[in-house]
Amino acid sequence: MSINRQLLLARRPENRVSIDHFDVVEAPPPPVEDGEVLVRTRFLSVDPTNRVWMKDVPQYMPPVAIGEVMRSGGLGEVIESRLDGFARGDLVFGMTGWQDYAALKPGGALGLAKVPTLPGITPEKFLGICGPNGVTAWAGMIDVARVGEGDVVIVTAAAGSVGSAAGQIARLKGARVVGIAGGPAKAAKLVSDFGFDAGIDYRADDFADQLKAATPRGADVLFENVGGAIMEACTARLNPRARIALCGMISIYNGGGSARHDWSVMLAKRLRVEGFNLIDCGPIWAQAVRDLSGWLAAGQIRDEETIVDGLEQAPEALNMLFDGTNVGKLLVRVS
Amino acid sequence: MSINRQLLLARRPENRVSIDHFDVVEAPPPPVEDGEVLVRTRFLSVDPTNRVWMKDVPQYMPPVAIGEVMRSGGLGEVIESRLDGFARGDLVFGMTGWQDYAALKPGGALGLAKVPTLPGITPEKFLGICGPNGVTAWAGMIDVARVGEGDVVIVTAAAGSVGSAAGQIARLKGARVVGIAGGPAKAAKLVSDFGFDAGIDYRADDFADQLKAATPRGADVLFENVGGAIMEACTARLNPRARIALCGMISIYNGGGSARHDWSVMLAKRLRVEGFNLIDCGPIWAQAVRDLSGWLAAGQIRDEETIVDGLEQAPEALNMLFDGTNVGKLLVRVS
Repeated sequence: MSINRQLLLARRPENRVSIDHFDVVEAPPPPVEDGEVLVRTRFLSVDPTNRVWMKDVPQYMPPVAIGEVMRSGGLGEVIESRLDGFARGDLVFGMTGWQDYAALKPGGALGLAKVPTLPGITPEKFLGICGPNGVTAWAGMIDVARVGEGDVVIVTAAAGSVGSAAGQIARLKGARVVGIAGGPAKAAKLVSDFGFDAGIDYRADDFADQLKAATPRGADVLFENVGGAIMEACTARLNPRARIALCGMISIYNGGGSARHDWSVMLAKRLRVEGFNLIDCGPIWAQAVRDLSGWLAAGQIRDEETIVDGLEQAPEALNMLFDGTNVGKLLVRVS
Repeated sequence: MSINRQLLLARRPENRVSIDHFDVVEAPPPPVEDGEVLVRTRFLSVDPTNRVWMKDVPQYMPPVAIGEVMRSGGLGEVIESRLDGFARGDLVFGMTGWQDYAALKPGGALGLAKVPTLPGITPEKFLGICGPNGVTAWAGMIDVARVGEGDVVIVTAAAGSVGSAAGQIARLKGARVVGIAGGPAKAAKLVSDFGFDAGIDYRADDFADQLKAATPRGADVLFENVGGAIMEACTARLNPRARIALCGMISIYNGGGSARHDWSVMLAKRLRVEGFNLIDCGPIWAQAVRDLSGWLAAGQIRDEETIVDGLEQAPEALNMLFDGTNVGKLLVRVS
């Protein structure tokens, strides 16, 4: 009989996350109802939003309740199907949660869907650049910021999965792209590996001067993942009528930091600031995945992955996003 | 020989404005160059933006320099014309400034233009509801917020010239409109005179509760003129994917008050916040004036005016906007 390890949220972390915030329990795999599939988790997608879901604050979905399996997107294999169109052995993604087995059905945010089979694209890409992260980047850059030829674009957390995709999409659309990341190695990598026009280390003493030098005529688009002082430095570089695609504010998710920033700059510069989220991306999902997988297969964009092994490593893996120790898509391999 | 009284900015006010912040000088009317008209000022438009122009802070136009005539939109009569298409006796508007006579030419923000002659519409309406204020309201409600049938709309500073027009435009487009103003008389007036669905006094002890009761299913659009605690109370009522047409933050223009507000609410609710300004309204100006003057002539919208007599009263008149003692368009009659 298979065992279903589950990480149940036991207490809400104040700052860093550890296994101590969870009860690790073992249960049988869940029963499968009509219209559901039983999925064995292979990979978990580790994203800043996981950290937000642990907090009891207003947000775009209900927080994970105490005692509930930690919510997470994941990729797995169908073990048993009671759902038309799905068969044993199919690879699927959906809200697996931090557990070995989940009974899933279509619908809802990141609802159950089959992983496409495309030559040269491994399944886990559909959790990253051809899936939620790439679609988020596509939505922010194309649908929200409406990036175009000649725009100067700044991307924060640019070495992450969403940021690196966002910058590459902007370049494909004819923009000049400046990326911001933590540390000289990552900043250099933005240029050498992801083809950005410039990469800047926000930890450098002269960060603001470097940013100014990289945007001599200001910037027209900010793809914002971080918030805090980095966002303020970027906002100072924006031209009148610039657009901010507000994707995340990771600097506040782990406790500390303030989300209070100047609103009058939106007036003085007539900015358009738009918060957006994957849960609203249903209408553009198919087109975005088509674009992204086409670009990836053609070698026009690239990605990287950081893979951590073991379900019980998920809490520590999440910290990597805040320490900046991952590059590209962060995954936990469960089986 | 005519005398041109001029109010030159002598020192920058910290809080309230008075005549002591200006040097009142008398000069001859300015010479008229080829391509210019000499205009005798009849009415000055008094707007929150005058107060911003007095401050040496980053803004959408350069601040008025010390020693310079105070900048202001105004309406006047052509005394002498060296510009094709303009003749002595024509009524025009443009950037007259706080003075009796100005030499004006076309172009720039609120450039020289003839006042239309329309039956039943007095010239000064084209400084208010059929001019800059109405166009601002039109731009924010139609172009920025894209208000539509069934939207719930909140308007702050709703008894002012821009706010009362914005609310009426939203109602014409099929929205339910809740206006916020200072004091019970103005709040009642929003409903009785301007046809709003509800009017709320922000000075009431139970303001937040009243706002909640007036928006039982939340709100989809906020037309924001005020900033500060009033804006935060309104933002708390917004539904996911609501739009904020950010027109002004008058609560900070007179010194005091903070412009720092939560940005994470834009993420949590996926808000679109767009700062906008009349200086960008060239492309929609003609259509907006056509709509507004048509609605006014047909009795579908109405406005009010508060008129203060005397050029030298302009500084004190400006304070009325911050004290909330005007209703509708505030004008200074110069001649």
